[in-house]
Amino acid sequence: MAPTTRKKLILNAFVMQTPGHLNPGIFRYPGDQGTKYKDINNWIALAQKLEKAKFHAIFFADVLGGYDVYKGPANLEPALPGSSQIPLIDPLYTVPALAAATKSIGFGVTVSTTYEPPYSLARRFSTVDHLTNGRIAWNIVTSYLDSAARNFGLDTQIEHDERYRIADEFLHVTYKLWEGSWREDAVSADATGYTKADAVRQIHHKGKHFQVPGPHLCEPSPQRTPYLFQAGTSAAGKKFAAQHAEAVFVSGQTIDLVAISVKSLREEALSAGRDPNEFKIIMGILVIVAETDEAAYAKFEELKSYGDREGALALFGGWTSYDLSTYSNDEDFRFTKTPTIQSIVTRWASTVPGKKDLKWNKDTIADYLAVGGVGAKIIGSTKTVVDELERWVVDGGVDGFNFANVTIPGTFDDIIEFVLPELTKRGLFHEDYEVPGGTVREAYTATAGWKRLSESHPGSKYFWRAGEEKQPFLEDASTKH
Amino acid sequence: MAPTTRKKLILNAFVMQTPGHLNPGIFRYPGDQGTKYKDINNWIALAQKLEKAKFHAIFFADVLGGYDVYKGPANLEPALPGSSQIPLIDPLYTVPALAAATKSIGFGVTVSTTYEPPYSLARRFSTVDHLTNGRIAWNIVTSYLDSAARNFGLDTQIEHDERYRIADEFLHVTYKLWEGSWREDAVSADATGYTKADAVRQIHHKGKHFQVPGPHLCEPSPQRTPYLFQAGTSAAGKKFAAQHAEAVFVSGQTIDLVAISVKSLREEALSAGRDPNEFKIIMGILVIVAETDEAAYAKFEELKSYGDREGALALFGGWTSYDLSTYSNDEDFRFTKTPTIQSIVTRWASTVPGKKDLKWNKDTIADYLAVGGVGAKIIGSTKTVVDELERWVVDGGVDGFNFANVTIPGTFDDIIEFVLPELTKRGLFHEDYEVPGGTVREAYTATAGWKRLSESHPGSKYFWRAGEEKQPFLEDASTKH
Repeated sequence: MAPTTRKKLILNAFVMQTPGHLNPGIFRYPGDQGTKYKDINNWIALAQKLEKAKFHAIFFADVLGGYDVYKGPANLEPALPGSSQIPLIDPLYTVPALAAATKSIGFGVTVSTTYEPPYSLARRFSTVDHLTNGRIAWNIVTSYLDSAARNFGLDTQIEHDERYRIADEFLHVTYKLWEGSWREDAVSADATGYTKADAVRQIHHKGKHFQVPGPHLCEPSPQRTPYLFQAGTSAAGKKFAAQHAEAVFVSGQTIDLVAISVKSLREEALSAGRDPNEFKIIMGILVIVAETDEAAYAKFEELKSYGDREGALALFGGWTSYDLSTYSNDEDFRFTKTPTIQSIVTRWASTVPGKKDLKWNKDTIADYLAVGGVGAKIIGSTKTVVDELERWVVDGGVDGFNFANVTIPGTFDDIIEFVLPELTKRGLFHEDYEVPGGTVREAYTATAGWKRLSESHPGSKYFWRAGEEKQPFLEDASTKH
Repeated sequence: MAPTTRKKLILNAFVMQTPGHLNPGIFRYPGDQGTKYKDINNWIALAQKLEKAKFHAIFFADVLGGYDVYKGPANLEPALPGSSQIPLIDPLYTVPALAAATKSIGFGVTVSTTYEPPYSLARRFSTVDHLTNGRIAWNIVTSYLDSAARNFGLDTQIEHDERYRIADEFLHVTYKLWEGSWREDAVSADATGYTKADAVRQIHHKGKHFQVPGPHLCEPSPQRTPYLFQAGTSAAGKKFAAQHAEAVFVSGQTIDLVAISVKSLREEALSAGRDPNEFKIIMGILVIVAETDEAAYAKFEELKSYGDREGALALFGGWTSYDLSTYSNDEDFRFTKTPTIQSIVTRWASTVPGKKDLKWNKDTIADYLAVGGVGAKIIGSTKTVVDELERWVVDGGVDGFNFANVTIPGTFDDIIEFVLPELTKRGLFHEDYEVPGGTVREAYTATAGWKRLSESHPGSKYFWRAGEEKQPFLEDASTKH
């Protein structure tokens, strides 16, 4: 196969507006700019650098509560010195400033469906889609931290699967607002008026969880519905993703396991009536690269020496709800009586090369999580890293990568210097944006003009096309949810 | 009195992110950029122009529903062609981009306390305060449109005075998060860690309307609490303003009436224990200025010829809840049996020069509201306008003006060309920012270093000062609300 005909990868930079995203303590590493997380000019510089390197998007993680399970309950102290995702600002406010300073790179932002009404969230995304000329993607989450639930007046979180049922109705409300409330050609902005009087309608949504008569306050934006990401791993999460997501984040330690996830996600999407070719699967990964394998491992160990172990255990507590402070350090979790932790460390253990017999106690977990989170890590020279990325694509079946960072901008600088040229040489990465100045949807599909949801997406049934008469909003659609 | 010792005015530009703010239909006026309301670069250019002219702030209005009372109920059609505040995007997302392109001008944004939880709103403002280096002000509103309430799942609005009681508790929750959750010196960002483990605490708020344990997710921002604006005119609104606002917007047609409001607001603030010198009163006003009085009136009439009368009546419906379509055009509202409308038009009638006997029917109201809203209008030459502004200051007792726009940027261009030089010459306007690169609070108080709430403000009781030991959050303060 000629290299130029190969499937081109989608590449994102994965960040969070906090000093310590997946790297508690690393802000102390020389040159790291984690402490500048609230400096808008620093983010502008990063966006311009990533755009110059032709990254598809910058992806912002977010949570709405603190990691307060470890040594808890409700104890944030272990998370604070290392900055385990605290302090943390709201990422959606930075995006328009980055868009004003760039042209083609997209922006993904994590926003929860659990703690904000769909009517105002729809307006926020329409606003940012307008201000960025269609360069916003929404990573739909339902939230997982009890600490967030408590701050929104709940005693505990809404039950997991119920959160997904709420999210499903939530999405349909927003589709109605984005796709069905203003006719495609509603705005003429000419001598006859700004908006045609008969081209805006109420959506009359009356569901189990939401009552939203509409209409939407915003005129149709370039993408209408922002490009939709999701990262569900549970059964309910996967089903939700198969219905709604246009791109899915996956995470995992081994290619075999991820390949199974990828296959089942694609099958689920197919059975939900979606066109599987529109369904992109993006793998979260940490890459530490240098001139040689040895240099890369040395860099990794050096970075890890800055990692904050207490902060790492705080992250573990928030992610899993298990407080490891209640376990002795003698406990080897490969043989623990807590099946969840056992299953987690068993997966991790299989990926630490040359250390099959490593005892997986608290210290080992802290060490493992001090740098780069729970996903796969690739450490090595250009050849090692690119060979491995290629294996994830060929054997794992993923469409692209979400590169985690250990240092900002260091991790991305290294990827730009060592990885991207080789990926391009192998025909795996584009030399330029396929649709310069286009929307995120056009960037991800590499198709000029593909600005809106496809016909196989459930949001498309609400399209109100140019010239179609104003009818009361579809009763069956509005009462179904 | 030497001109240079006179009280310097505070001047804002009053805008809204919609084609038609207080000027339905005017987007059709040649050169008006209303239709570019969703173009971030257009806003950047305006902010830079206003900063060059030394405006204190740009003030963004906002609403969360449509003006659907006229010819209603729930009928937006009359509002659409003229763009009576629809379409409308969320203004807070533009601010960081404007801050990145400017240095000293501030940004005020209207956000309601009625439809969003205090925990997430506190984070939004902390985020923007960080990203702008302390240049954000919050115009606190409780919302007045039934159309908004319905879209947040309510059958009708929460009762007016109850909205203010909720807002009062809401404010105390946010003060606790902003001022009392992180110690002043909580962040060290050095080898010992990013945040000191003992310098962040929960707020344990359990009130009638909100339960928010905290802690706040954001580290202390330059202002902590954003600079606080409010515009209450009801008894409950004034009481709220006297407690919480650092600057109050007033509106009115005559100096005599505004002088009474100003006096009563200052007295109310005094009796609430506030330092009246910290309490700024800003007057909303429309200025149409040209070389001569005649030229200014001609410009006003020309602008008005573009005004959309149906859109004006839609605005009236939203503001007053009265649907004028149910009244005949023979009805002269000076003598109507609807006392609210009678009182409104009687006030307006007194301000239209040379037309004391004008019949105030529907058409007159539409004409009056087609350009510049319900506040005072000053039309004339430089001398006429500046003399009149000076009278508002000397006799009315206001501290500054919020200049409405009819065209963007035309109205502000005229003010910059014809009004500001004369105001400066008379010693009424600064020649440069008193605190270049400072916060909004420093700009409004013209005092370098005055970044936070003053000691006489009710939010100050929650201050957690540097070095103070971690105590459980004040029980009396947290249980009071």
